[in-house]
Amino acid sequence: MAQKYVYWFGPNEADGNAEMRDLLGGKGANLAEMARLGLPVPAGFTITTEYCNRFFKEGGKFDEGLRAEVAAALAKTEASMGAKFGDPDNPLLVSCRSGARRSMPGMMETVLNVGLCSRTIPGLIAQFMKGQAGNPAAKQLAGRFVYDSYRRLIMMYSDVVMEKAEGIEPAEGQGIRQQLERLMDELKERKGYKSDVELTAEDLQWLCEKFKEKVQQVLGRPFPDDPQQQLWGAIAAVFKSWNGKRAVAYRRIEGIPDDWGTACNVQSMVFGNKGESSSTGVGFTRNPATGENTFYGEWLPNAQGEDVVAGIRTPCPLNDASKNEQNKHLPTLEQSMPELYRQLVGVRDTLERHYKDMQDIEFTIEEKKLYILQCRAGKRTGTAALNIAMDMLAEGLIDERTAVRRVDPAQLDELLHPIVDPAQEKNYRPIAEGLPAGPGGACGKIVFTSDDAVRWAREKGERVILVREETSPEDVDGMRAAAGILTSRGGMTCHAALVARGWGKCCIVGAAALEVDPIAKELRVDGKVFREGDVLTLNGTRGRVYQGALPLIEAGENPRFREFMALADKFRRMPVRANADDPPAVKTARSFGAEGIGLFRIEHMFYGAGGEQPLFILRKLILAKTDEERTKVIDELAPHVESDIYATLEVMDGLPVTVRLLDPPLHEFVPNDPTERVELAKGLGITLEELDRRAKALHELNPMMGHRGVRLGISYPYLTEMQIRALLRAAARLKEEGKNPKPELMVPVTCTVKELDFVRPIFDRVKQEVEKEFGLAVDCSYGTMIEIPRAALLADQMAKSAEFFSFGTNDLTQMCYGFSRDDIGGFLPTYMDKRILDFDPFQTIDPEGVGQLMAIAVERGRKVRPELKIGICGEHGGDPATVAFCYKLKFSYVSCSPYRIPLARLAAAHAAIAAGDA
Amino acid sequence: MAQKYVYWFGPNEADGNAEMRDLLGGKGANLAEMARLGLPVPAGFTITTEYCNRFFKEGGKFDEGLRAEVAAALAKTEASMGAKFGDPDNPLLVSCRSGARRSMPGMMETVLNVGLCSRTIPGLIAQFMKGQAGNPAAKQLAGRFVYDSYRRLIMMYSDVVMEKAEGIEPAEGQGIRQQLERLMDELKERKGYKSDVELTAEDLQWLCEKFKEKVQQVLGRPFPDDPQQQLWGAIAAVFKSWNGKRAVAYRRIEGIPDDWGTACNVQSMVFGNKGESSSTGVGFTRNPATGENTFYGEWLPNAQGEDVVAGIRTPCPLNDASKNEQNKHLPTLEQSMPELYRQLVGVRDTLERHYKDMQDIEFTIEEKKLYILQCRAGKRTGTAALNIAMDMLAEGLIDERTAVRRVDPAQLDELLHPIVDPAQEKNYRPIAEGLPAGPGGACGKIVFTSDDAVRWAREKGERVILVREETSPEDVDGMRAAAGILTSRGGMTCHAALVARGWGKCCIVGAAALEVDPIAKELRVDGKVFREGDVLTLNGTRGRVYQGALPLIEAGENPRFREFMALADKFRRMPVRANADDPPAVKTARSFGAEGIGLFRIEHMFYGAGGEQPLFILRKLILAKTDEERTKVIDELAPHVESDIYATLEVMDGLPVTVRLLDPPLHEFVPNDPTERVELAKGLGITLEELDRRAKALHELNPMMGHRGVRLGISYPYLTEMQIRALLRAAARLKEEGKNPKPELMVPVTCTVKELDFVRPIFDRVKQEVEKEFGLAVDCSYGTMIEIPRAALLADQMAKSAEFFSFGTNDLTQMCYGFSRDDIGGFLPTYMDKRILDFDPFQTIDPEGVGQLMAIAVERGRKVRPELKIGICGEHGGDPATVAFCYKLKFSYVSCSPYRIPLARLAAAHAAIAAGDA
Repeated sequence: MAQKYVYWFGPNEADGNAEMRDLLGGKGANLAEMARLGLPVPAGFTITTEYCNRFFKEGGKFDEGLRAEVAAALAKTEASMGAKFGDPDNPLLVSCRSGARRSMPGMMETVLNVGLCSRTIPGLIAQFMKGQAGNPAAKQLAGRFVYDSYRRLIMMYSDVVMEKAEGIEPAEGQGIRQQLERLMDELKERKGYKSDVELTAEDLQWLCEKFKEKVQQVLGRPFPDDPQQQLWGAIAAVFKSWNGKRAVAYRRIEGIPDDWGTACNVQSMVFGNKGESSSTGVGFTRNPATGENTFYGEWLPNAQGEDVVAGIRTPCPLNDASKNEQNKHLPTLEQSMPELYRQLVGVRDTLERHYKDMQDIEFTIEEKKLYILQCRAGKRTGTAALNIAMDMLAEGLIDERTAVRRVDPAQLDELLHPIVDPAQEKNYRPIAEGLPAGPGGACGKIVFTSDDAVRWAREKGERVILVREETSPEDVDGMRAAAGILTSRGGMTCHAALVARGWGKCCIVGAAALEVDPIAKELRVDGKVFREGDVLTLNGTRGRVYQGALPLIEAGENPRFREFMALADKFRRMPVRANADDPPAVKTARSFGAEGIGLFRIEHMFYGAGGEQPLFILRKLILAKTDEERTKVIDELAPHVESDIYATLEVMDGLPVTVRLLDPPLHEFVPNDPTERVELAKGLGITLEELDRRAKALHELNPMMGHRGVRLGISYPYLTEMQIRALLRAAARLKEEGKNPKPELMVPVTCTVKELDFVRPIFDRVKQEVEKEFGLAVDCSYGTMIEIPRAALLADQMAKSAEFFSFGTNDLTQMCYGFSRDDIGGFLPTYMDKRILDFDPFQTIDPEGVGQLMAIAVERGRKVRPELKIGICGEHGGDPATVAFCYKLKFSYVSCSPYRIPLARLAAAHAAIAAGDA
Repeated sequence: MAQKYVYWFGPNEADGNAEMRDLLGGKGANLAEMARLGLPVPAGFTITTEYCNRFFKEGGKFDEGLRAEVAAALAKTEASMGAKFGDPDNPLLVSCRSGARRSMPGMMETVLNVGLCSRTIPGLIAQFMKGQAGNPAAKQLAGRFVYDSYRRLIMMYSDVVMEKAEGIEPAEGQGIRQQLERLMDELKERKGYKSDVELTAEDLQWLCEKFKEKVQQVLGRPFPDDPQQQLWGAIAAVFKSWNGKRAVAYRRIEGIPDDWGTACNVQSMVFGNKGESSSTGVGFTRNPATGENTFYGEWLPNAQGEDVVAGIRTPCPLNDASKNEQNKHLPTLEQSMPELYRQLVGVRDTLERHYKDMQDIEFTIEEKKLYILQCRAGKRTGTAALNIAMDMLAEGLIDERTAVRRVDPAQLDELLHPIVDPAQEKNYRPIAEGLPAGPGGACGKIVFTSDDAVRWAREKGERVILVREETSPEDVDGMRAAAGILTSRGGMTCHAALVARGWGKCCIVGAAALEVDPIAKELRVDGKVFREGDVLTLNGTRGRVYQGALPLIEAGENPRFREFMALADKFRRMPVRANADDPPAVKTARSFGAEGIGLFRIEHMFYGAGGEQPLFILRKLILAKTDEERTKVIDELAPHVESDIYATLEVMDGLPVTVRLLDPPLHEFVPNDPTERVELAKGLGITLEELDRRAKALHELNPMMGHRGVRLGISYPYLTEMQIRALLRAAARLKEEGKNPKPELMVPVTCTVKELDFVRPIFDRVKQEVEKEFGLAVDCSYGTMIEIPRAALLADQMAKSAEFFSFGTNDLTQMCYGFSRDDIGGFLPTYMDKRILDFDPFQTIDPEGVGQLMAIAVERGRKVRPELKIGICGEHGGDPATVAFCYKLKFSYVSCSPYRIPLARLAAAHAAIAAGDA
């Protein structure tokens, strides 16, 4: 039997059903399902996604088998609707719409009114005038309706089928659609009309002729006057729109595979624009912004669906619950058509009961008859998602697992940070894009120095955005004072990003298009100049910078948040830790449910949070030249490191805390400021010239692969020893005080087990010494980062020395791809645009390459040491897809920045449920 | 049966033989073999290397089994020598010497005269005076000999056994040996003696008492007066010296595993210092410097072996053939002891016939009786190795395979470059070390600018060393004029290294200890200041910088070189290509036997060899801002690129030439010189300020992982297209002229097959266009570098698009280890010193990590495309061990810089022979 590519649907009957999303797309599957449910769906049929792929494989041609299937389905549709496609007397019109597995709203094409042509126009007019032949007003009305439909068809078809689907890329403003619009505008101007509705039937008829002439002239081909030709052209254009630029870009962002394809839904047209007894609208079965259990939507009398979307007329509220400031004066459907509203409410109830989820419904009322054109799970805000899930659970509609899965982890961000209102944001174009270094939204006046940020914010009470080329520890006060941070340089691990993330502060780094001039206090971009005090808005979750003030949605205190998270935790099987380095961040982490610290960076205390003194000592250390100088300075540093670790262990009492030895290339901490250099030279007792010389000698061409991590610890074993002693003494002191510290020592940037074997005896000896000093045992496990490909490949050797692994996926991704995260701005956007990369591997683990290294390391490591504890502490630890990946690899835990902990907890719960483990 | 740990040897009989090197060490195996050959070997025994490992495992203790075996072997030795160890009347003395599988000359310890003590001294004196009792002169002679032996024993034993083996590390100059030497010097001064031989028996006896007091005082233990205690102490010290600092360092350099262990040879002492009828010496069965087939060596009358080595007395030549400027006035052994010389020549003949290789022999003549103490394969220069191999082949002593294997590939370097005389070099301490970027030696006056180099060299005819912080294309003329190049910055792939290697010029880069001040024209290092005109010597093969002029050995024209290489090629199974980018280098490569170009770097033309114009155009390209500007400049650049490729294809006609698309981060080419910046701004028609801004925007934090390679080609497809067109047009033009070009296009820095799939359509289209333009077919294969770990891990995907792989092992090593080759100077020396790394992975492939990635890539790539051509074009391609590794992985070819081609050819021949393939 030949493969079936066409699925019919109509009143109470359908070949498909809701389970067949992959084959029929979401829209097609739901149309079939609604038909089966007995809902008033205009008849039609769906050409499958499989055929879409076949269509591309065959070079964009249709085969005879499909043509026969379509003919049969069309005949059945004609029978159901009592009209005939292309029939001069009683013509059936159809729409052709795309419909993929997952909704891609507005990304693909639609052609309406297919079947209108010189042969069918008179019949359709006659049909509209049924029983009113000879009535000139009725004739005018019918003529206006039909020719308006026809001009819409010509506009849409010439644009979608004849231009876009053919790959024609007209110059800016020269698209066929725009040219036709100009013709219409000219006519209106000539006639002195102010709106489209003033156009008479004759005007529109004349315009349709002009349109067709223009099409011939611009595109070199006539507008097709044959319904069959129109139909097949429209189907082909729908399929081709799967590979249109917008659709491809959207798939890239949303991670939708290219080979899913779209289905094409051919459905009988019904008309919401057949006069005052007709209308069209959209509804959500619950409020998509708040989740409130009230029917919510908009409608437009005497209109076709596209009018609602197009935003030319302000849509009316469906009911009182749907009223807002813009539309509260307009009539509701409930008032205007109470019976039909009641029917619609019935549909709403049926659909929610059936789908057990909030649905987004499109409907049309044609001469008082209600048709449902589409239903799908409705998009919703994070707040709404959470409330709907918890409500439906309470209502018994869904079970706990389903409730947990109803909230996308990424949506939780909104519940934790103020965000730029997404409904408004889409109307604005960013002036620049950068890396999303700190989540949420921020809006404020720009300042260019840390001091200004402090003065404006604290003294003037202004909300400010601190704009810098890049930040350094001296900027910390200003960063703290600012509502948001914006830099033109740096990557996801630069100073600004690290600090902002720890605080959960909105931050965009590496917005390379910006030219920051701190002297002139100017920000230049793309010919525009912004000066101190000008307002910018940052979307730190997306990395977008906007001119002016965009509205922010403030993070509300959601009382159900904790309830929901507790529910998620019920199904979670993998602990979540935090990357946090100071007591406030650690407290935040704990309040968000962190079950330990997966990454405590000793260097963090030098980023300014620990005050100036430790940084000054560190700088002396870095610029010391002899071992003698160095040893002396290290001794000075020790008490600071110890008290810093002590403070975190204290807050995380009873939970594991992984302390990482100094990691970054030290020259990062060398001051650039001349005054500070002078002071530092004095502190070291050397000349400024000598200091400059030493600083210069520290310069590295590729510091990311330079003298850092354990390499420092091997060059200066005494530095390693000091850190280990600080950690163990801090733990011993807490134990002495009756606390239960659980420290873990982590060695970074290892590439051979010999590095671990070098540090281990120091660890063992210092542990003995500290235990002797305090007269008590200190438990502390010994492990390593796996962040260098070689360490992953030789994980069996590493595991002989290490008791735990923690994947440093930032560096692992850098080395695996050969991408410097700090410099990727130079080519990542191009790589995304040109589809070389489907996603940013610094946001989500690349499962094929980096993930392969991780899988190798897990397998080889556990082979040698079955009880090996394995975690992740790169930024990826808070990415839901990565959490799922780590769960599959049987990680012992994931660790992420404090504000991402709820996301990670929820993602881990999803993963456990998906795997059938919970 | 218990394991045998002690192997006896003596006249005509031995437990071991020459095959047992692994167990008995080289010395022990050869002593056994010589004994079996009937050569006059003093009896003794060897304690095996296995026991050495056991000794360490047992914590440095001997077990009873061994003690029993030693007692038995000692008894047999006593019987053979007719003397008894520890016997007061007829005492036997023994030596204890180390002996590993492979010779580690001077790296481990020896104790002579073991068995001398208060109990045996009188007997030994009496024995010396046999028949002359009462003769005071004889008594004086005997006393001097015995007490001199005793003081030597005390010095050696206290140093080796009582101090070093105990891990005592005295302060500089405070070693026990030095303290004893001072006692002896004081005595000589007090007595007014000028040389040791003036010391009387009484002086020496007194001195021995003082020595023993000093030992007690300094080391807190008495000098042992019991022969057995001395013997076991000496054996333990020999074993322990395997883990002495020098031995460990040597093993690291030579790649000798730690677990081989050393054997300990206990052998009867014979005395070359028993008066004028005694002597000692060393001989080589052929001349170790030239390979000439003449007996060659040195001897000293009335001396012990250590005197020859110590260099206190100038040794005499063995025969006329051994005479040189220093010793030609001294008596030869041939003249002085003709009969013994004849015996020695007999031994020489026996040993060469038996071992079929040039031997290094140690002998002692005790009262006119010849003893052979040791023989081993003699160290030789490259020239000697080659001549001896070819001579022995001609003599029928060895077969062709053996002849080929007798020359170490690394030794060929000497035949191609002048080198620093190794015999002299060992007496000097380098003032700095850097990376060995260009091989051979150079000596000259230092200059600090390219112009000075040209002026001094060309106009004054001076040999100069160009000293720079780092070089840039502007320095090329000076680099060409200089005999050697020295920089304080940069890695093995920096500008200086790349250029020097192509020319085969001596070059050291990244000598970080140097502070180069081009303004003051000074070089500062370690408190010393060198000024323009001061003389330095560079060993570019080792990366060592010396003060003053060290003697160089000029590369001789060796007529047998080609003959030998042809012989090697007979067994070679893997082609060798060259990394070369301009006609002179390509010609050199071809003359060295290159069978194609494995790496032609388009960027090389911008390093200055192609003149100033292309560089200027490239700079304009780099600093262009819009696609329009860029396209225009690319068109300007095209003819230069085409003619450059044309020239190389022409020289390599008929052989494959792999052309790599632009690889380095472009900002490398941005000029720093203010004048050039002004000129460039003018060329671009922009202000200097704008130019500076653009240059700054190009800055990358980690350029090695930045916007380079195919990433540039994807950002600027037109740049890719231009290069492809230049390549294909160059090939088409040559074809038109009747030539046979074999171009291959190589895409660098790929991390996903999508990059290859992006470039491929450009390649296909341009190929069609060029073929149409010229009306002929151009064959050109399409391939990729494998230099990013991800590309190796996903080689199956890469091979779907690529027709060949070429491993870029420099970058692959960088990413696999996370080591920036340019910055590794900051920690590599420490890593080598502390044994974290056993070798420099940028010199030799790391088989465990980088090699694992290569093996994965080969396997996965060939699985998808069995005919996949696989090569290597990193610097490793010329490293013998790497060549062997690549051969094992069934590489299609290796490629290296022109001057390393002979090394690679020979290494490939060795690999094929070792694998049994040839």
